[in-house]
Amino acid sequence: MRATIMHGAGDVRIENVADATLVDPTDALVRVTRACICGSDLWPYRSMEASETGQSMGHEAVGVVEAVGDSVSKIKVGDLVIMPFAYSDGSCEFCHDGLQTACVHGGFFGSAGVNGAQAEALRIPFADGTLYALPGEMDEALMPSLLTLADVMGTGHHAAHIAQVSPGNAVAVIGDGAVGLCGVIAAKRLGAEQIIIMGRHPGRTALAQEFGATEVVSERGDEAVERVRSLTGGFGAHAVLECVGTEQAIETATAIARSGGAVGRVGVPHYPAVPPEQTFYKNVTVGGGPAPVRAYIDELLPDVLEGRIQPGRVFDRLIGLDEVPEGYRAMDQREALKVMIEP
Amino acid sequence: MRATIMHGAGDVRIENVADATLVDPTDALVRVTRACICGSDLWPYRSMEASETGQSMGHEAVGVVEAVGDSVSKIKVGDLVIMPFAYSDGSCEFCHDGLQTACVHGGFFGSAGVNGAQAEALRIPFADGTLYALPGEMDEALMPSLLTLADVMGTGHHAAHIAQVSPGNAVAVIGDGAVGLCGVIAAKRLGAEQIIIMGRHPGRTALAQEFGATEVVSERGDEAVERVRSLTGGFGAHAVLECVGTEQAIETATAIARSGGAVGRVGVPHYPAVPPEQTFYKNVTVGGGPAPVRAYIDELLPDVLEGRIQPGRVFDRLIGLDEVPEGYRAMDQREALKVMIEP
Repeated sequence: MRATIMHGAGDVRIENVADATLVDPTDALVRVTRACICGSDLWPYRSMEASETGQSMGHEAVGVVEAVGDSVSKIKVGDLVIMPFAYSDGSCEFCHDGLQTACVHGGFFGSAGVNGAQAEALRIPFADGTLYALPGEMDEALMPSLLTLADVMGTGHHAAHIAQVSPGNAVAVIGDGAVGLCGVIAAKRLGAEQIIIMGRHPGRTALAQEFGATEVVSERGDEAVERVRSLTGGFGAHAVLECVGTEQAIETATAIARSGGAVGRVGVPHYPAVPPEQTFYKNVTVGGGPAPVRAYIDELLPDVLEGRIQPGRVFDRLIGLDEVPEGYRAMDQREALKVMIEP
Repeated sequence: MRATIMHGAGDVRIENVADATLVDPTDALVRVTRACICGSDLWPYRSMEASETGQSMGHEAVGVVEAVGDSVSKIKVGDLVIMPFAYSDGSCEFCHDGLQTACVHGGFFGSAGVNGAQAEALRIPFADGTLYALPGEMDEALMPSLLTLADVMGTGHHAAHIAQVSPGNAVAVIGDGAVGLCGVIAAKRLGAEQIIIMGRHPGRTALAQEFGATEVVSERGDEAVERVRSLTGGFGAHAVLECVGTEQAIETATAIARSGGAVGRVGVPHYPAVPPEQTFYKNVTVGGGPAPVRAYIDELLPDVLEGRIQPGRVFDRLIGLDEVPEGYRAMDQREALKVMIEP
């Protein structure tokens, strides 16, 4: 079968690899009907050391179950499923508490010997705990939004949840990538009154406004902080969604949070530390991390099915597997917002 | 009148100063019946540069109102009041939200031109917003516990609240000072099942056990982290109360928090930064800051009045004003846990 292998920075190839098969009795085999490229895939795309064996890529998918192991009881052959970016046993204390990304037997697709989803098919560990079976057939038009429940929409929701977005709040969303845009959707869904999108890509901030953003701040650094303060009565935002992960982003996030506010960060941190001065004296809470998107599907799916939210609009390009290397290039150059793959 | 003035590290004097008077129409004048020395007073006691004018000290008091300004409507002459460590207007957005330590017109006693409470009397800005009038006469035996509502008990509660202590939780409290011990009381009050006190002063950890601590960890650094992990099934604590403020304390706090857990920090931070690695990948939330103790009195007072909690037991020495310099010395040397002053 064909799959996406990254061999180094800028070096993404579609290769013929061994067919995915069941290994453990808790596995399922999923034929991928939709996958995509994630903003977090761009970190290795920019920095990975050259590797002959390479790295299997992709951690978001919708697909159809083709086979299940003997111990799989909930997931059935033929199910249309969402594959969250982390696999999880579904039975440990953390899974029980809805933090599947901390599952004691869990891990992430496309790492540590588990293959990625930018492929024709893949093996799913702990199928019953990992996969979310959709209720019946789905309209093709819903596929993009369903696919976002595997990562970006759940991650945007996680940022909003951790930032404690509440009805009437002033919310700032840092980053106009797919996660930031889903953060706007999540903030609006949770009742935010004011939503400030912070980004400088006109097409993306325009989409953010369609999703519910009330203001756009394209400045950065101190100027951005001043703008947000002036837009929020001088106090700053109740909730800040940090969807980038750079040092400037986290510094801005803590600076624009009002006293007693909270920062939900979901951008993978590429900064050394958070200085306590900006948070302690203001009683600002900082939280977040890899989103337990599996836990959020129950809450988000009805809104997708009934069309109240349309996070699938973050996809602006649909490609086949052969075009995946070009898809990485286009996302890296910010020509494409988020690329969907139909293998 | 007599008041406590600090003139530099180790240099605390009782001096005759101008009598406290009303200045603004929103002021009250309070005769101090009980004050105390705070662990945070020891930071300047160890590091303050020599100063001829010096610094008025003290930010916790119980007292009787002797006079009120023309605009004071709720507080009456003769009221027995708790004076929280921060003054606050009681009317701004932050006071309304219960974060009086962020009051737009507020500040802290013993700083920025507002005198401290280790004195015979003091002026209270924004009396209606700042002071908490106790309901009627109080038994003398309750005075120590009532005094803790001005700071340490409210601060321990803040740490527990921010750390999201919930029924059944495993909680770790870092620091066996008065705030840490009040943190133990707060954690037990909020339903914690396991409470690990981390400290090495035998008398204080014994008191922590009387307050509800189930285990004592006297190790520090990596050994402490290992002990807490082994006491919590290998996972760490759901909630960590950081009541010290050193770099080692915050590092231990984030290391012993389990995935999805939270750190409530109330020790004034004397460290450069919190590294994201220890928190992000575990989805650990870090929050806290100057406690809005004014907001917590409504919740904590009934438990004090009905004897369900006895935070006043943290006081192990009662002195007059003249002995305040010796009181600082004794607390600095950890001979006294917390010193109460009867001016």
